[in-house]
Amino acid sequence: MADAPYKLILLRHGESEWNAKNLFTGWVDVNLTEKGEKEAVRGGELLKDAGLLPDVLHTSLQRRAIRTAQLALESADRLWIPVRRSWRLNERHYGALQGKDKAQTLAEFGEEQFMLWRRSYDTPPPPLARDDEYSQFDDPRYATLPPEVRPDTECLKDVVVRMLPYWFDNIVPDLLTGRTVLVAAHGNSLRGLVKHLDGISDEDISGLNIPTGIPLSYELDADFKPLKPGGTYLDPDAAKAAIEAVKNQGKKK
Amino acid sequence: MADAPYKLILLRHGESEWNAKNLFTGWVDVNLTEKGEKEAVRGGELLKDAGLLPDVLHTSLQRRAIRTAQLALESADRLWIPVRRSWRLNERHYGALQGKDKAQTLAEFGEEQFMLWRRSYDTPPPPLARDDEYSQFDDPRYATLPPEVRPDTECLKDVVVRMLPYWFDNIVPDLLTGRTVLVAAHGNSLRGLVKHLDGISDEDISGLNIPTGIPLSYELDADFKPLKPGGTYLDPDAAKAAIEAVKNQGKKK
Repeated sequence: MADAPYKLILLRHGESEWNAKNLFTGWVDVNLTEKGEKEAVRGGELLKDAGLLPDVLHTSLQRRAIRTAQLALESADRLWIPVRRSWRLNERHYGALQGKDKAQTLAEFGEEQFMLWRRSYDTPPPPLARDDEYSQFDDPRYATLPPEVRPDTECLKDVVVRMLPYWFDNIVPDLLTGRTVLVAAHGNSLRGLVKHLDGISDEDISGLNIPTGIPLSYELDADFKPLKPGGTYLDPDAAKAAIEAVKNQGKKK
Repeated sequence: MADAPYKLILLRHGESEWNAKNLFTGWVDVNLTEKGEKEAVRGGELLKDAGLLPDVLHTSLQRRAIRTAQLALESADRLWIPVRRSWRLNERHYGALQGKDKAQTLAEFGEEQFMLWRRSYDTPPPPLARDDEYSQFDDPRYATLPPEVRPDTECLKDVVVRMLPYWFDNIVPDLLTGRTVLVAAHGNSLRGLVKHLDGISDEDISGLNIPTGIPLSYELDADFKPLKPGGTYLDPDAAKAAIEAVKNQGKKK
């Protein structure tokens, strides 16, 4: 085992086609936009410029995270590092909201209900029917999972519960070998991880947004607690601007 | 364990920058050309059209093979499958020939010496100096390998010796679970594997060329012997034409 501090980098995927259209995405496997691809390349350049070179990559099973990692690692010249993937790093399943317009949903259900679904810790949206066009229940990538763990909807608490076993059993062991670990994932799976790392309360986590495409670097002590709470964005100014933009997502016309 | 036949797909990377320039490449980590990228995308389409969908990917540590796999899996909608990588699937190390023009080398050393280096089973080219601009001896991707296994030159026999342990210990176990395995690698690491699978003699292997970007599918029996010797190219006409082109590589002006 290597000594602390351990080096962890979190990377939320670049803009996706449905981010751009302001739709709830969840488990729907949409691709990156051209802007999202550029964010990913820039993310890799930030890693390279900071001399923060990943030794191993963990991704979700969703193409927007996988491609973000591929593009970032290509621009950081680290395409050859080992890769591990898990559905446990997937975005939150947005239930019946998947495929729905965010602004329209806000108008239809009102701000209170909208914010409850988006930001409450333990209230999931209504479940998505398994035969809905936006259900991934029968997608071949989940074929090896018993049906009872394939979600039809999730709140952030559900994400934390299914994501943490992967953190403990798969990511921490890579950190323990002294490797710099890159986790390329999603707004909510990363919020869940940051909540755990920084010990953020169920209430306060609703105010936390993670911007797309900007690597967030953590140094962790021997107990896997951050040396600096909240970590360090490799481009702090861009992160600050992007966090503001995410906050206003539901309010787009 | 699943029952035979086991499904194996071999994919040689698409055209690289140095294939296009007719230079010996070996372990130099050149990228794909635009043509090579298109070949990779087409390779994925061939897989999809044949309903031959990989469940797990094995690649070398070289970007031309890694990117070929990424592009092929993206077009086959299988970007999410598990990935494993090993230096044991790398291209043959071409020793002091790396970076040299093939036609110029032919003119300089004559056809006999040229063909001996290119095609003899057990005569490696002279070793590459470790401080040569085209040496990868100190590349970070090989930092975890003891120096004595990092080659300075290789003949095809050397490739077979270092590749087969990975076949037995890492690829065969994936086949045994019943998964369709995609191996994205290089002209000579795949020639070595085909030599083993088809029981080709040390002499006859010199006549075997594997075209770029066209998936070569094998069904293997319980002893991991091909049901059909030589396997099946998913685009047999293109494969035939490409094999002829490879044969004439040294003869380009």
